[in-house]
Amino acid sequence: MNGKLTEPSVVAIGGGTGLSSMLRGLKLLTGELTAIVTMADDGGGSGRLRDELGMPPPGDIRNCMQALANTEPTMEQLWGYRFTEGVLKGQSMGNLLLAALNDISGSFYEAVRRMSEVLAITGRVLPVTTEDVRLMACFDDGTEVFGESKIMEHKKQGDRRITRVSLIPEKPPALRESIEAIENADIILLGPGSLYTSIIPNLLTDGIAEAIGHSDALRVYVLNVTTESGETENYTAADHVKALFAHSGTRLFDYCLINSSPIPEEIAKRYKAQGANQTVVDSEELNKLGVSARLCPMLDCSQGFARHDPKLLANEIMRLYIEKSHTRIYNMQVLS
Amino acid sequence: MNGKLTEPSVVAIGGGTGLSSMLRGLKLLTGELTAIVTMADDGGGSGRLRDELGMPPPGDIRNCMQALANTEPTMEQLWGYRFTEGVLKGQSMGNLLLAALNDISGSFYEAVRRMSEVLAITGRVLPVTTEDVRLMACFDDGTEVFGESKIMEHKKQGDRRITRVSLIPEKPPALRESIEAIENADIILLGPGSLYTSIIPNLLTDGIAEAIGHSDALRVYVLNVTTESGETENYTAADHVKALFAHSGTRLFDYCLINSSPIPEEIAKRYKAQGANQTVVDSEELNKLGVSARLCPMLDCSQGFARHDPKLLANEIMRLYIEKSHTRIYNMQVLS
Repeated sequence: MNGKLTEPSVVAIGGGTGLSSMLRGLKLLTGELTAIVTMADDGGGSGRLRDELGMPPPGDIRNCMQALANTEPTMEQLWGYRFTEGVLKGQSMGNLLLAALNDISGSFYEAVRRMSEVLAITGRVLPVTTEDVRLMACFDDGTEVFGESKIMEHKKQGDRRITRVSLIPEKPPALRESIEAIENADIILLGPGSLYTSIIPNLLTDGIAEAIGHSDALRVYVLNVTTESGETENYTAADHVKALFAHSGTRLFDYCLINSSPIPEEIAKRYKAQGANQTVVDSEELNKLGVSARLCPMLDCSQGFARHDPKLLANEIMRLYIEKSHTRIYNMQVLS
Repeated sequence: MNGKLTEPSVVAIGGGTGLSSMLRGLKLLTGELTAIVTMADDGGGSGRLRDELGMPPPGDIRNCMQALANTEPTMEQLWGYRFTEGVLKGQSMGNLLLAALNDISGSFYEAVRRMSEVLAITGRVLPVTTEDVRLMACFDDGTEVFGESKIMEHKKQGDRRITRVSLIPEKPPALRESIEAIENADIILLGPGSLYTSIIPNLLTDGIAEAIGHSDALRVYVLNVTTESGETENYTAADHVKALFAHSGTRLFDYCLINSSPIPEEIAKRYKAQGANQTVVDSEELNKLGVSARLCPMLDCSQGFARHDPKLLANEIMRLYIEKSHTRIYNMQVLS
């Protein structure tokens, strides 16, 4: 930890709704916020733009920008709007704005930067790489599948789980700004989000895992509230950590932050029917991996799903940071 | 004229690039600016959205909003961006933003109003009607064509000219706010723009021509610099005015503002090859129609086309207003 006297610099690495939800909480506690986002998506609206315009997939970036936006309500509504008819059915306006700006600006990084200004976002969002990368997955039944959207389909069919993922091409260079953000971070967060399709792809770029490994920041893995069918079925907390360390080849973090509230029975039953359950915490196994479990009630089931409460999650991250910081931290607030 | 002591309230009626170009000049001289825009377009990107999403055609509105926008450069660039590949090829970002906001807002009028806030436009842009209207044209060879885009194609094929246009359905109610803007105007401008496809369609809605006819504002028709093949081939100034009066059934204006600078020979030659020439001014015929010709050099050929210079045009409109105004006008500036 750099022990700064100002707001801590936070880097959150991942993709999907898990990451963007956490950002909604974090932005209330620090403006020094960088989201580093996977770029292997090739399905849905992102996949269509990728195929048609040859641009990087904007969807994960768009979600994070939406979470961090501070612009007027109309612009925010437009950003999140999804077309329901015509050739654009299912496509989101934010994706289209990024596509247009990508063409105007000459680089996707520059497009995201300029759009971030228009949306007056707190902090910044960075693609982990600007290379044209795809995800490849090996399953425990021996099958291999190319492309994130096909992986998502494949894992739903039959009783199989992902055992390993890789990027094609292998080890694409990470964006320089993403590595620098990690190097300058006081707090580095991995997750929450789909283990193999949102978190690990970031660690397979050239430079990210190394930078995290060398950092003296507070390094925390935010464990998912539940396991995920086809990805982490029956995984314990330590199984998640083992997968992360195996894919990156290094010990990436010191803490595993875990929700301690039980999922209400009715919701748990629905999850079980879909092959998911509340993630089991095996603290001793975590300790053997050099990782301390940190449990705290952070559950939000108000929408009928078992999710992290963004504010409780952000608060707990900051509490941990304050506790572990060796210097006095000023300007720190904890949300009520 | 209302003889206000503040900036004069200007209403400009039309469509196409002629209107939006004039607005770029006018916005430098008054913030009390209302553009009333034809809604009969059914071609290009506007036509596709009209067919696919069942929304009013946004293209003419979009052009005017672009001319009046005062937002940050990135947002202005995005607004004017046109896709060059994929299913969106040829579609403009501004159209898509209006389509999204039309769906969110529940009315096209409200969508335009909210988008105008995002773009921080000077004045406002109003659709002449929010009814689903199409244009029908009769040609001098007896043919009748339905739909503005088909009319545009038809007039290019063979030696024919539009003689009359009508709206289907006939006499759709004009937007209440458009009529009120005309009633409260100090200056009412018709044109510049395509006579039959940009100007006259506005006059065929229920309420617009009547409101103009009853107004004591300074009422000016801005004559096009050149005639237009298939629409106004060989039309004199008075021929334009006759067509306007015939379609509206009333004497709509008192002045015809006309560029007096000759078009350079090289450009004139190119226009002639396309069936167009500098519009001939027959002042005596205009007088017989109760219209005074006002000539002034207002030509801009810098882009290789014979166009109005927006600043010179706006200046001359304001000069005419100051001259004809019976009260002292304060806060009036003329551009250098």
